[in-house]
Order: sequence, then C-alpha cells, then structure tokens
Amino acid sequence: MPELRKDPVIKRWVIIATERAKRPHDFVRPKVEEKSTFCPFDYGNEHTTPPEVLAFRPADSSPNTPGWWVRVVPNKFGAVDPTLEPRRYGVGMFDAMEGFGFHEVIIETPDHNTHLALMDYKQVEEVVWAYWHRYTALANNTLIKYILIFKNHGRDAGASLQHPHSQLIALPIVPKRVQEELDGSLDYYNYKERCVFCDIIREETYRKERVVEENEDFIAIEPFAARFPCETWILPKRHANSFGSIVEKEVKSFAKILKNTLYRMWKALDNPPYNFMLHTAPTTGEGKEYYHWHLEIVPRLTNVAGFEWGSGFYINPMPPEEAAKYLRSVEIQ
Amino acid sequence: MPELRKDPVIKRWVIIATERAKRPHDFVRPKVEEKSTFCPFDYGNEHTTPPEVLAFRPADSSPNTPGWWVRVVPNKFGAVDPTLEPRRYGVGMFDAMEGFGFHEVIIETPDHNTHLALMDYKQVEEVVWAYWHRYTALANNTLIKYILIFKNHGRDAGASLQHPHSQLIALPIVPKRVQEELDGSLDYYNYKERCVFCDIIREETYRKERVVEENEDFIAIEPFAARFPCETWILPKRHANSFGSIVEKEVKSFAKILKNTLYRMWKALDNPPYNFMLHTAPTTGEGKEYYHWHLEIVPRLTNVAGFEWGSGFYINPMPPEEAAKYLRSVEIQ
Repeated sequence: MPELRKDPVIKRWVIIATERAKRPHDFVRPKVEEKSTFCPFDYGNEHTTPPEVLAFRPADSSPNTPGWWVRVVPNKFGAVDPTLEPRRYGVGMFDAMEGFGFHEVIIETPDHNTHLALMDYKQVEEVVWAYWHRYTALANNTLIKYILIFKNHGRDAGASLQHPHSQLIALPIVPKRVQEELDGSLDYYNYKERCVFCDIIREETYRKERVVEENEDFIAIEPFAARFPCETWILPKRHANSFGSIVEKEVKSFAKILKNTLYRMWKALDNPPYNFMLHTAPTTGEGKEYYHWHLEIVPRLTNVAGFEWGSGFYINPMPPEEAAKYLRSVEIQ
Repeated sequence: MPELRKDPVIKRWVIIATERAKRPHDFVRPKVEEKSTFCPFDYGNEHTTPPEVLAFRPADSSPNTPGWWVRVVPNKFGAVDPTLEPRRYGVGMFDAMEGFGFHEVIIETPDHNTHLALMDYKQVEEVVWAYWHRYTALANNTLIKYILIFKNHGRDAGASLQHPHSQLIALPIVPKRVQEELDGSLDYYNYKERCVFCDIIREETYRKERVVEENEDFIAIEPFAARFPCETWILPKRHANSFGSIVEKEVKSFAKILKNTLYRMWKALDNPPYNFMLHTAPTTGEGKEYYHWHLEIVPRLTNVAGFEWGSGFYINPMPPEEAAKYLRSVEIQ
C-alpha cells in the first residue's frame, strides 16, 4: 500500500510508493536505454493499458481501440491508489496517510516519435483540453485537494517511456512548494493589495529583458531569481488562481506559447531533457484574489552544480537575462 | 559581479553566479569526461590555486608547498566574492544583494584517487577538523549569517574535479531550506517544549527499523519521510544547534560514522554520485533550544523520477525501512 508521509520538521508530504517499489539493487547500475519495440501507447496496444478514462476519438470508434488523437489512462504503476481512503494516522511521533489519489497518463499523440515542441498548434491545444477535462472531472471529488499536471521529457528527466505523454496526480494534500507559493503570495497581497504574479507580469513587460515571448493572453519569461539555466515560466495575463478557469480563446494562446517555448528549448539546447509542472490553486479554491496559475518549465542541463538537488539552495551559472536573449533569438517555424 | 536575488513569491535567495557564467551554448552537449592529467589539488601544483587559508602540514614546511594532509583554499571560480559588500538594493519590484560571501574548497587528502568512504578514520577526522576551523573562523565575521559545508561526489552530483574535496560557502543570508527547518522546529518546540530532532533520535532508537548505524555520540538513520532512496541523516545525540560546538571526542565519533555510512553506500550502491550538506544553525546563534545540527546525505541514483527536481514534490520508490536494512547489511571493513 502506498503511503503519504509527513516530514516532522519542515512538514513536507512525500509519497512512499511501495506499489512501484524498487529493490535496492535496481539502483546499482545506470539503466541502459532499452530499445524495446513494444510501446503500450501505440495504436493497437490499447488493451495493454488500463481502460481509458478519456479519449478524443471519432464518434464511430470504440473505446480502447485505435483512432484516438489524445488518450488518458490510469497509470499502470500508479504512485497512489484511488481504491484507498485518505485516512490519517500516527506512526509513533510521525504522521502518515494512506496513499489515496489518482495517477493518470495523458498520451499526447498516437505518433511515437514526435514531441510537444514539434506538434502542430492544433494537437497541442487538444492536449491542453485533455488536461482541462481531467482537471475538471477530478476537482469534483471532494477528497481531492490538489491536482498536479506535469511532464517528464527524456530519460534524464525521469521519463521511462519515449512516447509523448504527460502525467496527472490528484492528491488529498497540497504539495509544499505550492503551499509556499500560496503563503508567499498572500503575504504580498496583504502588504500591497495586489497579486504578486500580476505585478511580475507588469514589471517584466516593462523591462523586456527577461521576456521570451508573449501573445494576447500569455507571457513566457525567465524569472528574476531563476534557479536553473533557461528555467521558464508561462503566465496567463488575465488574473486567475486556477487553471480550471481557462477559456477556449486562452487554450489556443496557451498551446501556442507552450509549443513555441518548448520549440525554442528544443532548438537552442538540442532537445534537452526537461520537466514542466502546472502550478494552480488547490481545488478548494484558495487564493482567488492573490494566487495566479502558471506553468514552470525546467530544462535539466548538464554542468549544473549538484548539491541543490537535496539542499534547496541554488547557484545558477546563467543569468536569466542571457537565457531569455538566447531563447528569444530562436526563429519559430 | 555575482548577485544574490530573491524570489518575490516564495522568498528564496538564489546566487546568480556571473563570474563563473556559462554561455548558453555550454549547455548544449553533455560534457565529456575529461581525462586531464593535470590536477590543481595534487602535490606540486599548490601555486595553481589561490593561496591556502588553512593547511594541516608539518611545522617545517612552507605554505603552498607539498607536505600537507588537508588543505583549504579559496575557490578559484567562486560563486560569491569576499571583496564585495552585502549591500541590498531593489531592481524595480525585485530584491537583490551584491554577491558577497566566501567560497572555499577543502582538499581532503593529497591522494588524487581515494574517497572519504575509503580513507582511514584518522584522515576523515582531520577533514572534520578542517571544516570546524574554517567554520569557526568565518563565523566571527559579523557580515556572515550562514556557513554551508557540502560535498558533491561524482560528476553526476556536480563535482567538476575528481580529487576528493568538499566546499564551504559563507553567506549574508540564511538558505530557505534551513530557515524552514528553523521555523518548523520552533513550531514543534512551541507545542511540545522539546527539540523535534531529539524526539526523532529517541523514536528511531526505539523502533530500530530505520537505523543504519549508531555509536556513543551519533546516529545514522533513513528519515521517516525520505525524499530519495538511501537518503541518510547523521545526527549528534547531544542536543546542539551548531556544528561549531562539536568537541574532540565527538569529532572522532562523527568521522567514524560518516566514513562508515559513505562506505556502506559505496559498497551497496557501487560508488554512487552523492551530495551531502551540513545543516547547522545560522552563525547568529538562532535556535539554541529547538534546532539540532545534522548532516544530510543524498545519493543520486538513476531511475529516480525527475519532476521533483523543480517542483519540490517527491515520490520515493524505496521505503526508508528497506534502504536502512540494505545499508545496515554492509559489512564495515
């Protein structure tokens, strides 16, 4: 049974994923890239995944058969388990919870060999719609407090399958980093009576030097205190605490700036491994006035010092102004 | 000029290290392992580093010549600069500070090809004494608030030179992770009137299942809410908020458990890359009753999911109880 455990000092919840537990020996040798020809996300292999929970497919096609263009399935080796209950209990002095939650995979395309950076805008829009549909469906579950939507691209960024996919984890707790953003933006709001993210957008639009791209509805910037080279945030210009509130016109603009930003990284950094994560308010609706949803993209580049990994302290060897200039200079095709 | 910059949302300070700035292009291709024969930390190359600030060497030998067994020098490509002043200023809505601080390298041995895990206890003690001497010297500087002592072992953990060395960064700010530990342990103290780390030591000693090793003065455990497989903490049994208060007998015990723990990882995980960081109170003396210094060791293993890197949210595929059992089973030579 997977378990959620809370650090007694800094109050950070961690998933101890027993269902996908690896034996210590599994970590001894770097895993060799497997050139397996079988992919559970390809057309014709729909029966090898758990049954789909959402698919965009022709009206005359049957579930779990080919023909779809975006498909969402439960993760076969989920880190959390929807059949559990979010029951809390003590373990001596420690605090834990059953590993309740939903872990899903968004298969972004039937094409095994492409990438969000290279798809056409229409297909990226469809992926964003899939995020939105699953977000909205799971947000209705009152046991769920937070919905994490994220992507690992490339083996060095933690992707175990090459076929383009994103993931969604719905949890009965709010992740620490998000809680910190909520707390920090509330502090700012209490002092300034303004949303800190709205202020950042205004400041960056005026200064220009950290802007990578903008369109009518979104802006992509390198944050002022970037932790990593080419760390990029995409923010909606309209104040909204939740990704769930995105409207049709914004889905189009978001897909466009997302694809372009990933394309810039793909081109400028030679298809780097990267992670992105959608930061949005808890499903309880917290932060209406002061929080602002956004997407954070972190390429995992070599030559980046290592101790930040465990320490939470960062040395960034590339000023974000220089990174922005570099990414901006990429020609969009 | 290096700069300290503060994230306006979560108030995390980051070093933007312009002095060691890399051009965007440096990140494009994984750096090939350089089989350079020249090492600035070897005997005879003392003149290629900045002059030593501390060395354990025979009384009749001259500074910056061979003969030393531990040597500390300023980092030639320091992330911070001691000639600056910790002057604070605004950049529009943002907050920054000159990149003032000390960045030093502790060369742990003249032997290019060894490793803390394989040295004899006496040599590891000498390394700990070097930490202590530099800690104490820099703690006297009233502009310094925090002294970070850490080690990156292996290229995948961010080490750029193979020769065994640790690093020290003294800063005019307290890193966010440490501030969180201070805040969290104060909350616990306010509620329980006890140190949370002392309680953890008591609980783990009683339960045994997460203990890797203990001696008279120290205990090595896998934390209850471990973020990573084989993440290990070493804590002093005597309550003390600062590493600076360590006494001679404890230096011996600490060196012993540190070497043994690293040896266990070396043996069990086949010389994994790892990072360790000494967590100690700010030099201002905060946390006397409620904070407890300790060392956190994080091996960087493959097959560990990636999005934690940027999101602060962790899925650990190996229960700490299993990791402890595995590390415990290694025979110490």
